[in-house]
Amino acid sequence: VDVSKPLLITLTTDFGYRSPFSSIMKGVIHEINPNARIYDLTHGIAPHNITECAFVLLTSYSFFPEGTIHVSVVDPGVGGRRKAVAIETERYLFVGPDNGIFSWALEKEKIASEVEITNPAYMRTPVSQTFHGRDIFAPAAAHLSRGVAVTDLGSEVESLVSIPFPHPTREHNTVIGEIIYIDTFGNLVTNIRPGENEVVKGVTIKNLTVMKLSNTYRDVAAGEITAYVGSFGFLEVGKNLGNAAESLCAEVGDSIFVVI
Amino acid sequence: VDVSKPLLITLTTDFGYRSPFSSIMKGVIHEINPNARIYDLTHGIAPHNITECAFVLLTSYSFFPEGTIHVSVVDPGVGGRRKAVAIETERYLFVGPDNGIFSWALEKEKIASEVEITNPAYMRTPVSQTFHGRDIFAPAAAHLSRGVAVTDLGSEVESLVSIPFPHPTREHNTVIGEIIYIDTFGNLVTNIRPGENEVVKGVTIKNLTVMKLSNTYRDVAAGEITAYVGSFGFLEVGKNLGNAAESLCAEVGDSIFVVI
Amino acid sequence: VDVSKPLLITLTTDFGYRSPFSSIMKGVIHEINPNARIYDLTHGIAPHNITECAFVLLTSYSFFPEGTIHVSVVDPGVGGRRKAVAIETERYLFVGPDNGIFSWALEKEKIASEVEITNPAYMRTPVSQTFHGRDIFAPAAAHLSRGVAVTDLGSEVESLVSIPFPHPTREHNTVIGEIIYIDTFGNLVTNIRPGENEVVKGVTIKNLTVMKLSNTYRDVAAGEITAYVGSFGFLEVGKNLGNAAESLCAEVGDSIFVVI
Repeated sequence: VDVSKPLLITLTTDFGYRSPFSSIMKGVIHEINPNARIYDLTHGIAPHNITECAFVLLTSYSFFPEGTIHVSVVDPGVGGRRKAVAIETERYLFVGPDNGIFSWALEKEKIASEVEITNPAYMRTPVSQTFHGRDIFAPAAAHLSRGVAVTDLGSEVESLVSIPFPHPTREHNTVIGEIIYIDTFGNLVTNIRPGENEVVKGVTIKNLTVMKLSNTYRDVAAGEITAYVGSFGFLEVGKNLGNAAESLCAEVGDSIFVVI
Repeated sequence: VDVSKPLLITLTTDFGYRSPFSSIMKGVIHEINPNARIYDLTHGIAPHNITECAFVLLTSYSFFPEGTIHVSVVDPGVGGRRKAVAIETERYLFVGPDNGIFSWALEKEKIASEVEITNPAYMRTPVSQTFHGRDIFAPAAAHLSRGVAVTDLGSEVESLVSIPFPHPTREHNTVIGEIIYIDTFGNLVTNIRPGENEVVKGVTIKNLTVMKLSNTYRDVAAGEITAYVGSFGFLEVGKNLGNAAESLCAEVGDSIFVVI
Repeated sequence: VDVSKPLLITLTTDFGYRSPFSSIMKGVIHEINPNARIYDLTHGIAPHNITECAFVLLTSYSFFPEGTIHVSVVDPGVGGRRKAVAIETERYLFVGPDNGIFSWALEKEKIASEVEITNPAYMRTPVSQTFHGRDIFAPAAAHLSRGVAVTDLGSEVESLVSIPFPHPTREHNTVIGEIIYIDTFGNLVTNIRPGENEVVKGVTIKNLTVMKLSNTYRDVAAGEITAYVGSFGFLEVGKNLGNAAESLCAEVGDSIFVVI
């Protein structure tokens, strides 16, 4: 990563929009680097939901310019033994707790350095027990955006906590996957990436079976539910002009069966 | 529009704040124009609600400096036949689906060009079937902010989809209007713009009749409901220190009768 | 405050994220100062809740760089007799209605000037009766960010409306406080700042008694409730990996008893 030019910093948290936690992080970053340019990726991750955070980062991080610093604070283990880490890949920087939130994005990246943030010179002191976003992660990102090297923040770690991506399984001609994310519109995003040459003969979710893939939910009548490959590249189930999650009472983790 | 200087880009969508869709658009814009300055107008439009989007744009767009690029993606027809369009007026640029969301703002503007976005050089490819905000509208806006001419994005169209503003009707001494928007505070914004010389003798909404206009909801006692001309120039019904929509069980589309 | 260099402007309101009110303020600011850099502190203050706003400002304002202009519009008295004010302290500027929202932050600041904003040269005219954020406060902040002196906005006032911070009381060995804020995670923030040398022997809130302070909610088992000094420096009651407010049916204003 070339840190000689001004870099973007994104924030992804479960802090919500009512409390000032994410804004405080922005103030801390600006105090250290007045030229920082900060964007909210989202602060609407469900509280403590590490896999939702991992998925949102996976689907978003690479749309930002190379060199962007992605700070993410979904941190149920704050104040405990989990490490604070900074990771440099060939294209991006990631800063946050070492609890797996970066796992799925990092699977697509070539890692250059993985460091535990321990250098107090780059922290706000005293460090609180409950708000490392303010005291460790925001300062670390701000210093990185000024050109501090990742390796100045602390020592390399041997490995990071990794949560496995829940890959679908296959039994004969059936791929068995699950709902991995439900978007704002109630579209059900699954963990299945249909192969180029596979013809889908049926998709079953909850009590509904869809006989073939559409190009988009628009291909069916208003109010009808269909399956299609969504904008993230995953198989999705959605309702044209409606909310599939509500209609099907579907939740993250529910199974989906795809006959090919 | 003079596009030689750095321009603001605003985003208005129904993407909500939980999913990363609007943030992905920002990443895409920055990748193309690192100097872009992006503001969220709102991402809280009700899903697929074209008229709410039209109203929010009408009441907001002209407070931004001339040259601002207003990108709006409330797009129930994504992936279908609706056009992707860019519109240049004497003062602003608008980018989004051709479904009427810009109608009410454009009634106040002098149009210079209306173009269907078809030039793949200014899109992310392949273009997904479900997320034109990322693949068409964000790139178009980013290129416009770098000085690309609207007419480079595609060919002029003869006309845009237009949704009529729901003007009030009049029967004898009664103006019959409707609630066109309910704001965060539960104030009921109507489609009626009282004339300078008209004396309002009574406002009836749901089962409530207010005998005269106030200057503001502050002019009545706490908890009382009154009518006044709001900050958008439309007649509003609001409750001092309370929520009129909840108190009256009022919804967008409900009728209002004004005796003058 | 040195206003010769570009300054940040923060916005804190009860406007929510659905209506375009806060975005309109940003447009107005940019029209006056194209170089303004604006951050949302939060727009999620409960409608008309002056003390919540005062608390959020207290806990946030000082994390922004010196010279930041904090604009806050929680303004139940808009259009009434309350003054519009701008306050300069040794470190910051504050702009908003004179209703006490700045009281708790100002207790920590050294005040240089307190001015009633009356100069129409720095307002949008005509000034609406219901949206001073757009017509008075945003323009005032924008002009301040361009170097206009606070004292150019109007005349000094003798005193501001002040709401007292609800300090805890003490009876023998018991400190009696209250919940002053509930954060996104349901942690209960109280008005008690435990002294350095005080050993807490018990914390009682609702029907629950906690026998000693933890360093953080992480120090207890998942699902257990504990008390600790939070990141704002106040005593908090929180649930490890859960929501204490929901578990205890706790609300702002509820009493807390601390035996020392």
